[in-house]
Amino acid sequence: MSLFSEISEQPQSIKRLLSSQRRNVERIAAEIQKRDIRYVFLAARGTSDNAGRYANYLLGAMNGLPLALATPSLFTYYKQPPVLKNALVIGISQSGKSPDIVSVLEEGKRQGCLTVSITNEPASPLAKASDFILDVQAGPEKAVAATKTYTAELTAVAMLSAALSGNKKAWTELAKVPAWMKQTLQQSDFIAEAVQRYRYIDQTVVLGRGFNYSTAFEWALKMKELTYIIAEPYSSADFAHGPIAMVESGYPVFAVAAKGKVFDSMLQMLHRLREDISAELVVISNDKKALSLAQVPLTIPSDIPEWLSPIASILPAQLFAYHLTRAKGYDTENPRSIRKVTETK
Amino acid sequence: MSLFSEISEQPQSIKRLLSSQRRNVERIAAEIQKRDIRYVFLAARGTSDNAGRYANYLLGAMNGLPLALATPSLFTYYKQPPVLKNALVIGISQSGKSPDIVSVLEEGKRQGCLTVSITNEPASPLAKASDFILDVQAGPEKAVAATKTYTAELTAVAMLSAALSGNKKAWTELAKVPAWMKQTLQQSDFIAEAVQRYRYIDQTVVLGRGFNYSTAFEWALKMKELTYIIAEPYSSADFAHGPIAMVESGYPVFAVAAKGKVFDSMLQMLHRLREDISAELVVISNDKKALSLAQVPLTIPSDIPEWLSPIASILPAQLFAYHLTRAKGYDTENPRSIRKVTETK
Repeated sequence: MSLFSEISEQPQSIKRLLSSQRRNVERIAAEIQKRDIRYVFLAARGTSDNAGRYANYLLGAMNGLPLALATPSLFTYYKQPPVLKNALVIGISQSGKSPDIVSVLEEGKRQGCLTVSITNEPASPLAKASDFILDVQAGPEKAVAATKTYTAELTAVAMLSAALSGNKKAWTELAKVPAWMKQTLQQSDFIAEAVQRYRYIDQTVVLGRGFNYSTAFEWALKMKELTYIIAEPYSSADFAHGPIAMVESGYPVFAVAAKGKVFDSMLQMLHRLREDISAELVVISNDKKALSLAQVPLTIPSDIPEWLSPIASILPAQLFAYHLTRAKGYDTENPRSIRKVTETK
Repeated sequence: MSLFSEISEQPQSIKRLLSSQRRNVERIAAEIQKRDIRYVFLAARGTSDNAGRYANYLLGAMNGLPLALATPSLFTYYKQPPVLKNALVIGISQSGKSPDIVSVLEEGKRQGCLTVSITNEPASPLAKASDFILDVQAGPEKAVAATKTYTAELTAVAMLSAALSGNKKAWTELAKVPAWMKQTLQQSDFIAEAVQRYRYIDQTVVLGRGFNYSTAFEWALKMKELTYIIAEPYSSADFAHGPIAMVESGYPVFAVAAKGKVFDSMLQMLHRLREDISAELVVISNDKKALSLAQVPLTIPSDIPEWLSPIASILPAQLFAYHLTRAKGYDTENPRSIRKVTETK
């Protein structure tokens, strides 16, 4: 079965990416620094859009770059693209084939912007529309639900951020990621048992914030694609502005609460959910307080820095979705109604 | 009851806004045009964030301005705000009180950016942090679920876009909005009966695209806040990239399909949902083909231009959420777990 082996091979695929693409990433970063870049304009869909959410926080916090997520329909249906002066245009797509994402890069090129694609297909239309290609080198991904291309896209973004910052410590930390991932994947058997409890849920919300806002979105997407459970992602702040009204006693809430700058705000939300509302909690964390509030605690290494935590914290989420799909008797390889390559305009 | 009267008074409140703020908006637009603005950096939460989604499409399509939605935690928890050179910084908040949104404007000011607040409280901290205040003049909003401040925020954005474009036709069309809204609100009794069919749904997805991407998000938010039904919003393109796997025969899908540039893509999705998957459809549209595919068709005026359609298309959605809340016997004025002013960092 491809999905499980693709989840399992992620430490190796990230190790390969880190060693083979570093020089290329540094070349791209040098070119970016030559230009008068004011902000990043990023186009992506689905899983790759979640890698874009990570880039939004990481390039903002580490590199001072504001990031606008493109609205591709302005380029395709409306044919009224914005003026992209001083923008770095980035497209992220596993297949590099979705026409709407390609359109954004083509328009960026037409307007004279520097364009970069992050893709698993260096011969794709997306790659052809870009000045620089960051090949994530994840190898063929056969399962319809993307897993190893997601962590490879996250890592590519982290490498770009490290190269732009010129911070050597960032590279040292990046080099430890494959080992952290390997350690995290050891929970597979535990998760296979834990998911039994959720065999009959039909909805959930998934909370994350800061760097792990991306993880909440990606966990929710895997749940929807594979288990057909409606799982809605939120930042804990947006959640407090209304949607928390949905939660009643026993309602399942999934949360990603890695140690770091936003941890206290996540912990406060977990307390409120558990103690005031008696919600049911599945928590991915490397903090004992957060894990102790969960009915099902899923751990990530305690020494992983917050900025890299999304590359490890998605692994228990992928395993959770995989094992729950099996527990429900559904097809882990070919979910109903979706295809591997979705070509939207 | 405040909620129903606040929904009903929207045509008058928009009429007031259009006449009283036009000169102010033109003054703001003139100041924006004096500066070397490359993109908009916009901060908002909850309902106001949905007005921001409208701004993303409208300012992009009509005014060539790319728009980045701020990630406030970079300003508050991380204290690593991006460099906002050449940005126009806009904050949207009904109360003007959420500290995270105020932080973004304050940082914008510190960095020398032009800052504009769109708010119902011109004496609020947000207003104080901004160079220009666009007072939406919706009058006191007592119900916890925001309705009239949402359409006022949309209209404020539309006025700003019209003023920036210098297009007289845009103002002529804007002047017709109150009458279009009044016509749309006449469906209230029909909707009160139609919602009975959905008394026992516990989840739904809400689809929209382009200008009405905002409407899908706001409809979903009202459903969650008032009826506690989990309602997840999507662009029809993102929906095709995975989440469509959740939909099975009879699954309720809500959709906003106003005539315009993205209509054909929405119609194609509605055909797929109805004919291939036998989904249940509630559709807001001004096109007969789209309405004929729905079990419950909700109409907006046929002559409303696409760019202004979100100001009318949210009205049947608000009424739908209101009447369904009553059908379920829930409190329309004070939903559980949320307050009128949510102060998040």
